[in-house]
Amino acid sequence: MTRYEQLAQQIREQIQNRVWRAGDKLPSLRESGKRAGLSLMTVVQSYQLLESQGWIVARPQSGYYVAARPQPLPQAERGEKLLLSEQVDINAFIFDVLQACKDPDIVPFGSAFPDATLFVQPKLARALSSVARKFTPHSSLANLPPGNDALRRNIAQRYALSGMQVAPDEIVITAGAMESLSLSLQAVTQPGDYVAIESPAFYGALQALERLRLKAVAIATHPQYGIDLASLEQALTQYPIKACWLMTHFQNPQGASMPEVNKQRLVTMLRQRQIALIEDDVYGELYFSAERPLPAKALDSDGHILHCSSFSKCLAPGFRVGWVAAGQHAPQIQRLQLMSTVSASVPTQLAIADYLLHGGYDTHLRRLRRLLAQRQSAMRQAIAQHFPPTVKVSQPDGGYFLWLELEPSLSAMELYQRALALGVSIAPGRMFTTGNHFNHCFRLNASFEWNDRLDAAIATLASLIRALKPQSASSA
Amino acid sequence: MTRYEQLAQQIREQIQNRVWRAGDKLPSLRESGKRAGLSLMTVVQSYQLLESQGWIVARPQSGYYVAARPQPLPQAERGEKLLLSEQVDINAFIFDVLQACKDPDIVPFGSAFPDATLFVQPKLARALSSVARKFTPHSSLANLPPGNDALRRNIAQRYALSGMQVAPDEIVITAGAMESLSLSLQAVTQPGDYVAIESPAFYGALQALERLRLKAVAIATHPQYGIDLASLEQALTQYPIKACWLMTHFQNPQGASMPEVNKQRLVTMLRQRQIALIEDDVYGELYFSAERPLPAKALDSDGHILHCSSFSKCLAPGFRVGWVAAGQHAPQIQRLQLMSTVSASVPTQLAIADYLLHGGYDTHLRRLRRLLAQRQSAMRQAIAQHFPPTVKVSQPDGGYFLWLELEPSLSAMELYQRALALGVSIAPGRMFTTGNHFNHCFRLNASFEWNDRLDAAIATLASLIRALKPQSASSA
Repeated sequence: MTRYEQLAQQIREQIQNRVWRAGDKLPSLRESGKRAGLSLMTVVQSYQLLESQGWIVARPQSGYYVAARPQPLPQAERGEKLLLSEQVDINAFIFDVLQACKDPDIVPFGSAFPDATLFVQPKLARALSSVARKFTPHSSLANLPPGNDALRRNIAQRYALSGMQVAPDEIVITAGAMESLSLSLQAVTQPGDYVAIESPAFYGALQALERLRLKAVAIATHPQYGIDLASLEQALTQYPIKACWLMTHFQNPQGASMPEVNKQRLVTMLRQRQIALIEDDVYGELYFSAERPLPAKALDSDGHILHCSSFSKCLAPGFRVGWVAAGQHAPQIQRLQLMSTVSASVPTQLAIADYLLHGGYDTHLRRLRRLLAQRQSAMRQAIAQHFPPTVKVSQPDGGYFLWLELEPSLSAMELYQRALALGVSIAPGRMFTTGNHFNHCFRLNASFEWNDRLDAAIATLASLIRALKPQSASSA
Repeated sequence: MTRYEQLAQQIREQIQNRVWRAGDKLPSLRESGKRAGLSLMTVVQSYQLLESQGWIVARPQSGYYVAARPQPLPQAERGEKLLLSEQVDINAFIFDVLQACKDPDIVPFGSAFPDATLFVQPKLARALSSVARKFTPHSSLANLPPGNDALRRNIAQRYALSGMQVAPDEIVITAGAMESLSLSLQAVTQPGDYVAIESPAFYGALQALERLRLKAVAIATHPQYGIDLASLEQALTQYPIKACWLMTHFQNPQGASMPEVNKQRLVTMLRQRQIALIEDDVYGELYFSAERPLPAKALDSDGHILHCSSFSKCLAPGFRVGWVAAGQHAPQIQRLQLMSTVSASVPTQLAIADYLLHGGYDTHLRRLRRLLAQRQSAMRQAIAQHFPPTVKVSQPDGGYFLWLELEPSLSAMELYQRALALGVSIAPGRMFTTGNHFNHCFRLNASFEWNDRLDAAIATLASLIRALKPQSASSA
């Protein structure tokens, strides 16, 4: 860790330990530097890092102040700086959790899918209908990998408009981001290779690693700032890691987003070692702030970053249309796709291409973002009202998940079982790890329009949490 | 470089990369400025620079458009495709053969896909259009694995009508038969396991084995009667084979169909040893005889036969809808699917379900079978007329492939290269084997409506064959 990072960490810990509280003015740059025996430049870097991470805010002509932190936020699991699982083992439990969410009698807080009503899009239906009339059998052959030409250019245009240089030729249309991820892993690894992943991580990534016989090196991931770069750097020196898989924005399950400076460090760190970065950015469009955060792919200089996304979370769940901007790996991705699913479904590719031209996608996205922000807020209010104050709740700046931490002695798995018996599903932390971690954590889906049924479900969870008995230390 | 030059360069690169194409309207000056964080004046300078360089044109009261660039883009040299050596990665080679078939200037005898015009189906288009109107976002969740309920029941009904007992519950809808095959292999094997396959075999199966790190035990396969059971039995005693993959009807590439008695012996042989049978039956509906030959699945008594098929060869290429009747392996197949592609595309599942109810599928199939039989006959006639009599030609009783054998000293790979240079593609035998076999064989696609262009292509192949020089024995 560099000196400025050390200073930043010290100050962060002081804020966490409430040495400095929200609204407190921090020592001036000059004063801090003098005390720590550091140059002014080093202190400036530390403060900028803390600011980018949201810990402090600058007030012009005044100085740096501790940022408001309205509710306790979950912490990165200390014990799990580096967890190595030689053989990833995911049980059928995840499948059961997903199946339960298909049952309309169950409140689907455990679901991974955004509320379906968010996607009522007559223009998309019209696009599909119009494609049906124009579809010729020749379309099938023409849209083999890399996929529909117009759709790939459209996606490239959206990259261009956000300030990124991504050529249509490096884009491959896939059967959703799940296929992008799987093909990307196959393109850059061999069975037995090590892959650095987040902890906690999207279970789909854990399952993909297991299926492809890859070894997971789980890196501590902060609920707010994402993957811990010091831990990652340590892991890179210890293991012959071939690829790094992570979510830069609104990470599933915690909702973390990597600060800009972290993305830069990450890309530099991986580029120096010629390690591929698989950037899963399926939630990237679901930001609540004024502007879309730029993905790490924006910093790609050698075609070694594979940016995976899809229309499944933003526009058309069930169409199974996603893509990967695969840099130098695009030809290999195409070959792998031909031998696994041949191509993405052609009518749905064409329908989305048509919709992107005429459907008003950006208007839809603006409404979607506004609704998701409102719904997250409603769920957080209900939680604040019902849950014991000891339960920590994340406050992501996008996406539709909340991450909750019970007291460490309580079991979210027990909560899951008891809640399911009462018709409420949650996603226990255990789903998101290769080890025996996050047992006191769980993820809630905050994408639903708030109503009395959901409020009652939160109240049910609250009373179940209050009734939970501490577990013995051995099972923690 | 100044900021306006930088912006101009970015846009130029985007035009070169076809992000924007001739005639596309560029973002407005105001929008570009906002996105790039540049002043309006800077953007105006950029656009003027691009205009002066001929990249874009201004249209008064409208905006800037990408200029037409009349000079032809350089074409890929045909000769480049001919650089093939023994060291060439077979997967890359197969990819090249498939890519060549997308080129409308090439006669696609090497294609694996049936002639697109066979599938002009207004009723299928209407089904898709009707689904588009009725599709609700809830459909996505409801049609997660195992897939659309109506479609699974419909498929089960078709099994029942042909005299087979297959429950809807053991049917999983997949993204085409290629995904069925891949999931089936994963469900019944672990990496490193031995799998018995045909020789020659569908290259997709060879690629799937390679991708899943399975060991292929290639079993001699008769061009007319399919896999040689004595060789298979011997292999089963020699290797700890976990699964057997084969095509029972109109096998790709040879067109072989297993006689009824052979299917019975095969099923008994595998059942005794508790070995799973993955039966790829994608061509099963394309029979020329009076009745559909019953698959080996009809003899399944312990749920250990996984019957894979799809609508891609019979009804809807490009929809990517297939299935596997997976017996006892169905739950595992669902789990594997959730972690590889999540589900088959929902609108196309629903459209096919709708079509099967109302579209007259059986009428379509009868017409399709009649046309394929006629077209096979036309191609065989042309071959008989043009080819030297030493070339052997298969006469399959269904499907749309012909398998041809030159004299053993001649190279089909050389024929492939020379023919491609003259605009005719074939599928050399080398694509269908893990070893160095079938070098004097090739496969032709016989699904096209016969015409003078195809006749000329056969004549071209014939003269090339006559000109082939015998290879030295070492390279055979």
